[in-house]
Amino acid sequence: MANSQLHIPIIKVNASSSVITADTLAIEEPLEIRLEYGKEGQRQVQNISVTMRTPGHDAELANGFLFTEGIIKYADDIISTAHCFIACAENKENVIQVTLNPGIVPLLQNIGRNFYATSSCGVCGKGSIDAIRTVSSFAVQAADEDTILTDVLYRLPIILQRHQRVFADTGGLHASALFTTQGGLLLLREDVGRHNALDKLIGAALGYGWLPLQQTVLLLSGRASFELVQKAAMAGINIIAAVGAPSSLAVQLAEEFNITLIGFLRGERFNIYTAAHRVQIPGNRIVDSSRVIVENI
Amino acid sequence: MANSQLHIPIIKVNASSSVITADTLAIEEPLEIRLEYGKEGQRQVQNISVTMRTPGHDAELANGFLFTEGIIKYADDIISTAHCFIACAENKENVIQVTLNPGIVPLLQNIGRNFYATSSCGVCGKGSIDAIRTVSSFAVQAADEDTILTDVLYRLPIILQRHQRVFADTGGLHASALFTTQGGLLLLREDVGRHNALDKLIGAALGYGWLPLQQTVLLLSGRASFELVQKAAMAGINIIAAVGAPSSLAVQLAEEFNITLIGFLRGERFNIYTAAHRVQIPGNRIVDSSRVIVENI
Repeated sequence: MANSQLHIPIIKVNASSSVITADTLAIEEPLEIRLEYGKEGQRQVQNISVTMRTPGHDAELANGFLFTEGIIKYADDIISTAHCFIACAENKENVIQVTLNPGIVPLLQNIGRNFYATSSCGVCGKGSIDAIRTVSSFAVQAADEDTILTDVLYRLPIILQRHQRVFADTGGLHASALFTTQGGLLLLREDVGRHNALDKLIGAALGYGWLPLQQTVLLLSGRASFELVQKAAMAGINIIAAVGAPSSLAVQLAEEFNITLIGFLRGERFNIYTAAHRVQIPGNRIVDSSRVIVENI
Repeated sequence: MANSQLHIPIIKVNASSSVITADTLAIEEPLEIRLEYGKEGQRQVQNISVTMRTPGHDAELANGFLFTEGIIKYADDIISTAHCFIACAENKENVIQVTLNPGIVPLLQNIGRNFYATSSCGVCGKGSIDAIRTVSSFAVQAADEDTILTDVLYRLPIILQRHQRVFADTGGLHASALFTTQGGLLLLREDVGRHNALDKLIGAALGYGWLPLQQTVLLLSGRASFELVQKAAMAGINIIAAVGAPSSLAVQLAEEFNITLIGFLRGERFNIYTAAHRVQIPGNRIVDSSRVIVENI
């Protein structure tokens, strides 16, 4: 059974204390789905999709994906679905192969979505992170002089809520908002897709000539996935605060690029996952880590 | 300015009343991003991506997408970004073309994601729905004999919460759960990606030989997007209940396929968006529509 959780140390901040403690993250890792098909003597293997998933039930995910995308029609089309142990020893848990019966012709023209399907992306978390390093102009420039006060952070979701017009009406939109490190709202974009809301925001900033977006804070209305941290890194954003939880790969990417990642920013509390030095905590009163971790485990 | 909201009549149900009223949905429609590039005399246009988005700020979305995916590096790479009025008169609001300077070579090998990129999908909501009809074995078979009691619906999120093990630890996972119409839990799958959670669930059901999944109810822990309703339709699910809001295209797809779509299922209340005949409301006491809509507008 694959592990779907990861335990890491974080700093939990609220109005009265800041404590280093252990936290549990949902694991996010790429899964490459391969399809073996064709008549006997003419068998071929094709990469169908790479999706960012939580490990576990991978065979069901691969079979379900092929079915719901209309690529196969029946369970009997499949001979076997198994992690790929031969050609890809290093990332064997992140590659799965579905083998079809020789008589079955997969309806590959129905492939609708194709996440991270380039080989350069890699199919382990590390490979996904490395791929970003090669294409980003700003991601490795994270400046250390950007800092933000806890009191400013507490205010951001309140400002977001006040300005999130369409969400107020529909309850159905994700938002990305860009603030100054003093808490001034610079830009807000909404969309049914969280990646679209962030692309709209970064597209606007690009047009205004604002990139790299140092001295700013990105607020995400939901969870922080790998994809969102990746887009923020591309725009040179150094501080990301999410109302929801981050995934394991989002934290790893933020760590790697020295981006401050904050999660569960609600009311007067939040968690710091990475690069805590940019958060100015009053009195700098962080409780000693080792002692607290022992208490919490 | 594109419209990002749609108003439709729904049935609002709680423990004491059922009222037909007007509701506001976030609009979800496909956007095809095209790129024109190349030296003078060798210009070409290529489809880069189709993403499900909320209309509005489309040029920012297209420019931001190209930048955050590493396909372009600078704002100056772009001559213009505009909706495509010539080749595609019918769906002109859903096609946008980014024109690059002749000297710029787009880094197309960096394309990581490619949503609904087949031409068969179409780039209007109607086209997206039609595409599903052609590939689904079960989607048009929605049986009318499936019904569910309001009291059973109220219980579903409570049962989901009790069993959502990883979410309880991390706060960071989406869930899809399958119940009998009597409220018995059949299957539960969790993932950082909501589409993955549903693919895992349908993949498991496929393996058990349960398809089409009539006489069942699908519970979604978050919002109901087009993509999730599409996957449910492929598996022959007739009743979908979401804890969050549905998008406009999710409602249109459910309507088209005679699927009962319920949203905002929280506590002892929910909204019925489509095919309300499958929900057994005690005393069948729905307040007359016309009168209430007048009151609400």
